[in-house]
Amino acid sequence: MRVLGIDPGLTRCGVGVVDGEVGRPLTLVDVNVLRTSSTEPVPRRLVTIEKGIDAWLDEFEPDVVAIERVFARSDVSTVMGTAQASGIAMVCAARRGLPVAMHTPSEVKAAVTGSGRADKSQVGAMVTRILRLSAPPKPADAADALALAITHIWRGGAQARIDAALAAAGRRSPA
Amino acid sequence: MRVLGIDPGLTRCGVGVVDGEVGRPLTLVDVNVLRTSSTEPVPRRLVTIEKGIDAWLDEFEPDVVAIERVFARSDVSTVMGTAQASGIAMVCAARRGLPVAMHTPSEVKAAVTGSGRADKSQVGAMVTRILRLSAPPKPADAADALALAITHIWRGGAQARIDAALAAAGRRSPA
Repeated sequence: MRVLGIDPGLTRCGVGVVDGEVGRPLTLVDVNVLRTSSTEPVPRRLVTIEKGIDAWLDEFEPDVVAIERVFARSDVSTVMGTAQASGIAMVCAARRGLPVAMHTPSEVKAAVTGSGRADKSQVGAMVTRILRLSAPPKPADAADALALAITHIWRGGAQARIDAALAAAGRRSPA
Repeated sequence: MRVLGIDPGLTRCGVGVVDGEVGRPLTLVDVNVLRTSSTEPVPRRLVTIEKGIDAWLDEFEPDVVAIERVFARSDVSTVMGTAQASGIAMVCAARRGLPVAMHTPSEVKAAVTGSGRADKSQVGAMVTRILRLSAPPKPADAADALALAITHIWRGGAQARIDAALAAAGRRSPA
């Protein structure tokens, strides 16, 4: 499974592609941050993000797109731009018929560090270890995008195992 | 000047086209509400809104798109969907190189009713009067979209008059 993780943002939008399956080593494919300038009008910035995400979808052809779920309770000064960028990311994926998964920041932290309250440096350290990198991806938005992709592979895998176990149990039970 | 007003929303997105200039009667061109079902996943709903707005831009070819400015302090349960829908509306316009103007709800209320604290029914009543309609457009999202377009024509016109007056004063002043 190939997952494009997107940490949405208007100024910095993290994008990271990870290949892998549960129970096997995961592989970093590519990671970067799409940047737009705060001196540009917001509609232009959103078009730049749209083009950037479309280019990543074209190049890496992921099976699924995992996007951080934004909450209205987040930092008021940036939450609207983050919500708009996440909407653009969703549309880019949905237009191509790709499944979109949303994971909350605490789900991502819990998946990669074991604690839903882990800080940025812990997430960066674990992403580095899980993907066997020589250094944490910088900036944090890049590491967060990879953490989202990792989370999706692991959570999706867990769900798939539960489904498989239930199906197997169903087959074994008397009809 | 032809303005497409958009009152962004995930469940109901008001769209209304108004033709006119300051100081002359304004004309309703068309108004409607784009609807998406809450049973659909959000990415699909955003694609539906994108297609709907693109269809309006194709059909009516506005000179400018006026969108309601969303605030993070609004109703938490709907603000994220509203922000995402507004981002889609911005991108649809900006992709075509159309200017995008944002007006706050109180700017719109003040422009059409004289009071920034007017309620929905006052806005509906004034839209009906300004556009010489036989009844207020329903639902409120449709009236709000028209109020946005009216506001843009009137505010834009005021700014244009100030600019023209300044330019004229400049010409008249000794060089």
